[in-house]
Amino acid sequence: MTVRPSAIGGIVETSLYVANLARSAAFYEGTLGLTRISEDERLVALDAGARSVLLLFQCGATQTATTTPEGVVPAHGASGSIHVAFAVPPGSIDDWRAALAGDGIAIEGLTRWPEGGESLYFRDPDNHLLELATPGLWPNY
Amino acid sequence: MTVRPSAIGGIVETSLYVANLARSAAFYEGTLGLTRISEDERLVALDAGARSVLLLFQCGATQTATTTPEGVVPAHGASGSIHVAFAVPPGSIDDWRAALAGDGIAIEGLTRWPEGGESLYFRDPDNHLLELATPGLWPNY
Repeated sequence: MTVRPSAIGGIVETSLYVANLARSAAFYEGTLGLTRISEDERLVALDAGARSVLLLFQCGATQTATTTPEGVVPAHGASGSIHVAFAVPPGSIDDWRAALAGDGIAIEGLTRWPEGGESLYFRDPDNHLLELATPGLWPNY
Repeated sequence: MTVRPSAIGGIVETSLYVANLARSAAFYEGTLGLTRISEDERLVALDAGARSVLLLFQCGATQTATTTPEGVVPAHGASGSIHVAFAVPPGSIDDWRAALAGDGIAIEGLTRWPEGGESLYFRDPDNHLLELATPGLWPNY
């Protein structure tokens, strides 16, 4: 393998593209308890725990490059239903299922993996496929 | 705020949708040095460091639910250019820029943020917008 300058130390920013920033930010704050750390007319950034940041981009607002005083953020943008999984503690899936049901959110799947982790599947307001996952799914989680 | 069963402890799975699984897996292994941890005909999963897993899904292969012996993974799938940022150590951006240039990869942007972090932007084979970012970009990174 080619020698790289460093190991990659995790994924910092995960992006979703949404039709209504205010609606989506309220969902992630209210339903998942994430904390808003930045916002402007094209983006809401949420602290998703550990070193993870969830970026909610207004659909269509990033199709051209964004010029800031510090430099250029190149164009990007997607449509459809993106999958994101969030870490939750061992043994918390049943409580999360009850909490989501209490919010009126439909549970689309609950999987208990042979490696020991559990996954709960549901949707955000833009039909993105969300998962709450306990440790044991992957060699590094 | 509504009381949640637990705090979300980070994002475990971040997804990209790609036209050619083998080509994309080779890119992420060779260019970023990620390690393949699982694969089948619809998915390659890569250890992206810390507790982060990068999921590469074959475009079109997840538009219907996937039934496994353990349960159902609901449908998802997106098109377009998704943004993902990976953590790299402080002071490593110039070396990464040289390494990517050595691989023939065009650098689309280099930003030094007022908070102290640096971001290097480039593309994967499907035009997804990738970023290598040093700490200092966010309150939690």
